[in-house]
Amino acid sequence: MGTQKRTFPMRAEQLATTDKRLLRGARTRGTVLRRAVDVASLEGLDDVSFGRLATDTGMSKAGIQTLFRTKEALQLATIDYARDMFIEAVTRPARKAPHGVRRLRSLIDHWITYAETPLFEGGCFRVANIAYFDSKPGAVRDALFKQQQEWLETIRRELQYAVESDEIAELELDLAVFLIDASLCAANTALRLGDKDVIDKVHRTVDSLLKES
Amino acid sequence: MGTQKRTFPMRAEQLATTDKRLLRGARTRGTVLRRAVDVASLEGLDDVSFGRLATDTGMSKAGIQTLFRTKEALQLATIDYARDMFIEAVTRPARKAPHGVRRLRSLIDHWITYAETPLFEGGCFRVANIAYFDSKPGAVRDALFKQQQEWLETIRRELQYAVESDEIAELELDLAVFLIDASLCAANTALRLGDKDVIDKVHRTVDSLLKES
Repeated sequence: MGTQKRTFPMRAEQLATTDKRLLRGARTRGTVLRRAVDVASLEGLDDVSFGRLATDTGMSKAGIQTLFRTKEALQLATIDYARDMFIEAVTRPARKAPHGVRRLRSLIDHWITYAETPLFEGGCFRVANIAYFDSKPGAVRDALFKQQQEWLETIRRELQYAVESDEIAELELDLAVFLIDASLCAANTALRLGDKDVIDKVHRTVDSLLKES
Repeated sequence: MGTQKRTFPMRAEQLATTDKRLLRGARTRGTVLRRAVDVASLEGLDDVSFGRLATDTGMSKAGIQTLFRTKEALQLATIDYARDMFIEAVTRPARKAPHGVRRLRSLIDHWITYAETPLFEGGCFRVANIAYFDSKPGAVRDALFKQQQEWLETIRRELQYAVESDEIAELELDLAVFLIDASLCAANTALRLGDKDVIDKVHRTVDSLLKES
């Protein structure tokens, strides 16, 4: 458990690239970014540098630098790539469930699998990095913050749907969103420390918030 | 807000040291560790090194190395020092309140002040570091984990007292401890990002858990 790695399918626009040189560039980009998200989730985004990724992937530092130009651009591309992987692992599969409580529970189940498997070597990408960048204003912090807001909005939307369709009783929406996210972030850390009981605590947190209407 | 710094009183055993050489060593140790906790809360414990602290404090790298011997010993001493500061800022002042709900609320109020002021440049020392070290087994992770367990036990004790003395109704003790800690950790991150509304969410979380018996 915890060492299995999933592969991430290439994006459609990458596959459509027929020019050999461009294709090679896209492949290099994918390989570099796949390694970059692991480094970022394990060591932090600050360790995502041209030199480190050249060493880890066996590619030339100059080649990687040509693709991304600056360290900040590389870090922002890493955040984007992690976001795509998160969507593939959590948000997209949950869309199979109908809106409301069922989709909310599916999102949470996929999130737990995502934190448990884990998709990234160091666990949740956002949790691993936001604690470091929260004190450092700039484009990287803004991108991490935006990613967090998207996730909170996804939870809020399903809770609101559940209330409006009378699936569950009225609740303090902002507090419920805050508590679900807080419990998932705490679960991610606890899972890293080997505490499996935390998964049950997350489900009980959600149960305590969703009362029959 | 957020830039004010508090000074930490020297410990009694340090003041009792009369030998001049030892006193100088104790002072150096205090100065180095005070800076080390700021570096650790802002950049992470991994950046706490002899070289970095020599640069930041103006002391000689060799002198600091003589005091702490290894980087790991320095990191462990930094965690200990942060723990003492946390006790002075949160646990000790809360002891003025009687056991149960009042002490629990005092602990939470002092914790919020601690995350808000902040005592450490980068906010909560534990939140800033546990996300990084949770994937890295070793003495540093164990020390951070022990510090977290102490804090959870402090919350649990007051909740249990409140139930046993009929101040509040029975509750799922482990879940309540988990949610209070999760909400405080989430609040720490939110405060770093400038979201003051989160303080109200923490209080509402606690209110939702403490029902009249």
